[in-house]
Amino acid sequence: LSSLGSERGVIDHIRRRLPAAPASLIVAPGDDAAVVVPERGAFQVLTTDAVVEEIHFDRRFSSLSDVGYRAVAVNASDIAAMGGTPTFALLSLLLPPSTSLADVDALLDGILEMASEARIAIAGGNLSRSPGPLVVDVAMTGHVRPRRILRRDGGRPGDGLYVTGTIGAAAAGLEWLKASAAAQRTDAGAMDECVRRHRRPNPRLRVGAMLGRTRAGTACMDLSDGLADAVRQIAEASGTGATIDASLLPLDPAAAAWFTSQGRDPVAAAMTGGDDYELLVAVPRKRGGRLRGVQRQSRGVPLTRIGELTSEPGIVLIRGGQVEPLPTGFSHF
Amino acid sequence: LSSLGSERGVIDHIRRRLPAAPASLIVAPGDDAAVVVPERGAFQVLTTDAVVEEIHFDRRFSSLSDVGYRAVAVNASDIAAMGGTPTFALLSLLLPPSTSLADVDALLDGILEMASEARIAIAGGNLSRSPGPLVVDVAMTGHVRPRRILRRDGGRPGDGLYVTGTIGAAAAGLEWLKASAAAQRTDAGAMDECVRRHRRPNPRLRVGAMLGRTRAGTACMDLSDGLADAVRQIAEASGTGATIDASLLPLDPAAAAWFTSQGRDPVAAAMTGGDDYELLVAVPRKRGGRLRGVQRQSRGVPLTRIGELTSEPGIVLIRGGQVEPLPTGFSHF
Repeated sequence: LSSLGSERGVIDHIRRRLPAAPASLIVAPGDDAAVVVPERGAFQVLTTDAVVEEIHFDRRFSSLSDVGYRAVAVNASDIAAMGGTPTFALLSLLLPPSTSLADVDALLDGILEMASEARIAIAGGNLSRSPGPLVVDVAMTGHVRPRRILRRDGGRPGDGLYVTGTIGAAAAGLEWLKASAAAQRTDAGAMDECVRRHRRPNPRLRVGAMLGRTRAGTACMDLSDGLADAVRQIAEASGTGATIDASLLPLDPAAAAWFTSQGRDPVAAAMTGGDDYELLVAVPRKRGGRLRGVQRQSRGVPLTRIGELTSEPGIVLIRGGQVEPLPTGFSHF
Repeated sequence: LSSLGSERGVIDHIRRRLPAAPASLIVAPGDDAAVVVPERGAFQVLTTDAVVEEIHFDRRFSSLSDVGYRAVAVNASDIAAMGGTPTFALLSLLLPPSTSLADVDALLDGILEMASEARIAIAGGNLSRSPGPLVVDVAMTGHVRPRRILRRDGGRPGDGLYVTGTIGAAAAGLEWLKASAAAQRTDAGAMDECVRRHRRPNPRLRVGAMLGRTRAGTACMDLSDGLADAVRQIAEASGTGATIDASLLPLDPAAAAWFTSQGRDPVAAAMTGGDDYELLVAVPRKRGGRLRGVQRQSRGVPLTRIGELTSEPGIVLIRGGQVEPLPTGFSHF
């Protein structure tokens, strides 16, 4: 990478920017591999997710700092969706020849900001040239207590389905950015928060860990591919049907207004729009007290009941007294 | 990915090809993240390394099965270089639009072959489209006993430097492939083994784990960026100098003959050629007995003494009674 100088120089630059390692990081970045002390009495959670230029982000719409932030956030969201707490991240950066050291610093700004918010230590990583897109591929470890794991196949008929936060904002934010780029608008106004949620997802780390710890939930997953997809996956994995009540959905108001202004059905758009990184969780009726306990400690993140798992096999949306099939899901692929 | 159909379909196809999960894989691929039981009493080793089209492989010279094999092998090599044993892998695949299901199967053939040889279980992964190169980015976990960790900074003046196997073969194999593509030759003849070592590196997993377990070594790293680079890194990290004796280097004979036929210095070419995935280890004189014990159980992998760490700060090559600077290293970047 001629513009960056040597690989070693870039790695040294990155290492110098990492905050002090926790005591559990026995061998920090710089050796063949990292060595860490596992959390006592816990199982380990492992995940990986990549953020790829042209596929997951567009440099016109997200800064490289946003890209770095997002790459860490989406992995942390997967750990939270298991009821776990993220611990260490490995960064694999694929950098095109045009990458400057300022670009690397911007990526790191976002990576370290999200890592700091979530108390995740960077354990190691890898740099490679890319002949094409810039890629931030993150692998993450976390920990979870045995019997506190939130799989997606643990739901039972009658469990209530709850979703954190609001839905549709990230998808509306991205659509607004695309439309505004065409119209050369820059002031997002009412769409400002939607744009922010596209650029910097806010994974529900505290709620996920509490849903596991309190055993309030029986099944959980994040909404990376949209709410409709998550409902389908939990129901299919749990061997149940599901009923969602459209009137209960916590649509983001600005997103709903945007979708409506574009002649779109806001319910379908919000349910199939990806990248919300909220959590969908199944909660048995008798664990409602535990759920209220999680809600009280969620620091303002709402948990909204949107329907339930059913013994009948269909997966349906109830809207205005009518039964509809669930809107067809979004796919990153 | 129109040629592949849906992301979910490809993921299901991959999951069906995975062998039965070990009991320690509590939540297998298919959920938000994997959950595993850590090895009791052990620390955990974490690493990541990517194999990128056009940068690390050329489809004219390696099959996709070779690419998959190599992606797992190079990560396992990093774990072995810490004295650890690899356990789980996460696969992040970036697939260009032209990818077919047969391509995915070929990648998996190689991935699963190396994983099976090394008893590594695929814990999870991620699929993404790629607007450019095909990328196999692997993150790997392993385990190592406390006080058995082979860092690169543990060497002391007087420690002998030993290298496994032979050097130069992978670099010579790649050079032969490039030259032969130009000349439209296909029969590698005497270069067959060099070509194989470029395509399918053979990480020294057993020797690495034994060097850690027996505490024969004080410092270790793999030769992914060439022997000269590894000597420099161990010496710099350990705060020592190093002397390498050119006459002791275990040059691969076919590689040496190839470099000579090309008018190159075979010692410099073999020392700076990357991708050998042998191990360089520093061994104190009084631990020679332990090293011989490792050698006896190495199943024929030679361990060759090539020089030593020194209290004088220089890093030098002795050749024909003359002292030279070490050849300048290879960089993947």
